[in-house]
Amino acid sequence: MDHVAEVLGQLFVILLAAKLGDELFKRIRQPPVVGEILAGVLVGPSVLGWYEINSETTLFAEIGVVLLLFQVGVETRLHDLLRVGPTALAVGALGVALPFAAGFGLGTLIGADVGVAVFLAAALTATSVGITSGALRDLGALRTRSGRIILGAAVIDDVLAMLIVAFASGLAVGSLEFGRLASLLVVALLFIVIVLLGGTGLLRRRRSLLTDPQFAATPFLPGMILALGLAALSATIGLAAIIGAFLAGMVVGESSERHALEAELAPVAAFFTPFFFGFIGAQVDVAALAHGETAVLLVGITALAIASKFIGAFAGAVREGRARAALIGWSMVPRGEVGIVVAGLGLTAGAIDSEIYSVVVGMAIITTLIVPPFLPALVRRAAEATPSGEREDGPPAGIEDDDGIETPLPG
Amino acid sequence: MDHVAEVLGQLFVILLAAKLGDELFKRIRQPPVVGEILAGVLVGPSVLGWYEINSETTLFAEIGVVLLLFQVGVETRLHDLLRVGPTALAVGALGVALPFAAGFGLGTLIGADVGVAVFLAAALTATSVGITSGALRDLGALRTRSGRIILGAAVIDDVLAMLIVAFASGLAVGSLEFGRLASLLVVALLFIVIVLLGGTGLLRRRRSLLTDPQFAATPFLPGMILALGLAALSATIGLAAIIGAFLAGMVVGESSERHALEAELAPVAAFFTPFFFGFIGAQVDVAALAHGETAVLLVGITALAIASKFIGAFAGAVREGRARAALIGWSMVPRGEVGIVVAGLGLTAGAIDSEIYSVVVGMAIITTLIVPPFLPALVRRAAEATPSGEREDGPPAGIEDDDGIETPLPG
Repeated sequence: MDHVAEVLGQLFVILLAAKLGDELFKRIRQPPVVGEILAGVLVGPSVLGWYEINSETTLFAEIGVVLLLFQVGVETRLHDLLRVGPTALAVGALGVALPFAAGFGLGTLIGADVGVAVFLAAALTATSVGITSGALRDLGALRTRSGRIILGAAVIDDVLAMLIVAFASGLAVGSLEFGRLASLLVVALLFIVIVLLGGTGLLRRRRSLLTDPQFAATPFLPGMILALGLAALSATIGLAAIIGAFLAGMVVGESSERHALEAELAPVAAFFTPFFFGFIGAQVDVAALAHGETAVLLVGITALAIASKFIGAFAGAVREGRARAALIGWSMVPRGEVGIVVAGLGLTAGAIDSEIYSVVVGMAIITTLIVPPFLPALVRRAAEATPSGEREDGPPAGIEDDDGIETPLPG
Repeated sequence: MDHVAEVLGQLFVILLAAKLGDELFKRIRQPPVVGEILAGVLVGPSVLGWYEINSETTLFAEIGVVLLLFQVGVETRLHDLLRVGPTALAVGALGVALPFAAGFGLGTLIGADVGVAVFLAAALTATSVGITSGALRDLGALRTRSGRIILGAAVIDDVLAMLIVAFASGLAVGSLEFGRLASLLVVALLFIVIVLLGGTGLLRRRRSLLTDPQFAATPFLPGMILALGLAALSATIGLAAIIGAFLAGMVVGESSERHALEAELAPVAAFFTPFFFGFIGAQVDVAALAHGETAVLLVGITALAIASKFIGAFAGAVREGRARAALIGWSMVPRGEVGIVVAGLGLTAGAIDSEIYSVVVGMAIITTLIVPPFLPALVRRAAEATPSGEREDGPPAGIEDDDGIETPLPG
């Protein structure tokens, strides 16, 4: 029981710290997510050391982001995503291409060999939709057209990022097979299409499916089972676990008892997500970043990461008008846990050294911290710039969206 | 991410299996808890092997029982526990003394030396209140006078069991210090008294304390923080983690927003507790128990464990009338995870061998499986035998209890 006592103590520390950070940032009118991440930096290994990165705290962080995306999925309908498909595809593709080119260029410039440059490029590529989703949810902006484009682009982003990481790993161990890359892509796309069309189709034909079992008064427990299962499956085939959870959410969101599900899911997600945000902060190694040359490299890579992702995603969304394109571009900037995971893979594979690792982790955290403070203004501008007759939050004014709920916009 | 994918997969398997066991047992009108435990046996290492006992699944099981007892604590008021204090003390003390004597006697009879006999006695001693609480909650019988006696006795039982285990461990490593035992007892009692009187006193003076923070719309998150913290502290000083969680529940149950807390806690507990019941089942080693001589030993020890606990607890509660005493005695029988933990300690300390370990784990599971099926009838009889003017479910008929809620009795 001693080990369990220790882990319970660490979960207590990170939950308490994250909620105190949340509290402080709410009181000074700053984004709570930033407060939770900074609290994680403070209690984490590199400052106070009260919280440890181990297999249990990692699991809690992972379930935190899994449930966050599950919750976002429940609020997302398939036809809304499909309606923004072409724009989301452009945002996802350009938002991956530019950071990749920038990272590869920088790597070549500082004299790294191809394997290192590709890993650096991969780490700059992948957006962390968890951070943006959390912040957009707080603003009530997830169900807007921009919110849907961001979610769709994030899924495409993750598929491309998975391919790039597989490519980089193949280069690092010297066994690059294009056949394997192609099969990865096919499996990932099949997974997404089958789950989405099969799952939502099944539930649309029988909307009470999830509440038929006697153990399930609401779709909550069947939904949690599906979320865990699809998250595990998604991670097994090489996608992020959160993609599976997001798809699971979209499927169970078709249930007739969706509002009961949302009510029960809310406290579970509220309990788990602080472990994710705190964990992100705890990853940063403050001491390693304090050296002069490393600090310069950090600033350079971070600026490049922000500019390349913003410009790429902005260009993909520019047909939506500049205000929406700016919101979408900015929302894709956080690299969060995805950048950290890619850097960790590169370190393990020996493709990057511990200095570059610290810099990439620092970049992931800074891109994550810098986004939420500017979102409220961008959300407001996107809403104001929307032409009359087409509301930013979906269907034309005066007509309820298909949820029977009108999502208020702030400001 | 590969390890995380694997763990997510195991959590998926045990949650799905437990809920299918729950479903099956509801349909054949048997206690769902038993279905969940047997599902754990089936997918666990000794049969299908789809689920592994590792640090993460152990943590989820532990949090499952921690939240179960937290939830029970929220429903329990201090003055109700104090009202049944003397009886609970007698039930706890006699319910520990008899199994200990029986275990020690049996150990001596089969020729074990003192250290082994004391460990066997310790493993027979400790009741698992988690199992009983779960089953009594399903029957709506936790807020009856008998339910309160059982909870109070379980706390006393755990304090005594902790002392016995410390005593046994001291014997096993040959360094038995009575001063240390005395200080353990003092620390445990101080912990319980300070948390209960200090915590409930604080919340009674300011019932909105937990909803004052801006991050807390309800006392749910502050309550979860307190539950994790006190569970960790409780385990650190040698008590079971669930005792701290139970005390945390009693404290936050004084909040003015208790019903909002209960509504948000319910889905979180419903998500976590199947991991506990499934884990209990997964501990059993079916093959090890199938040998002739071991099976005989298992039957003997199990019979002794049931009889000694029932008779001891029945004797402690006999002034309550035979019907209530029977319900209380029977409810104290499950050894569940506590017996398994003690056996594990004995195995690690080298005091017992792997055969005795398997037998004790088997005993813990059987005592746990045998109790729920008989509870509905015992609860009904206790209710019927209650003299008019004093209702089994607490205050006199026609007067609401202090919760403003009348708990219905089944049947």
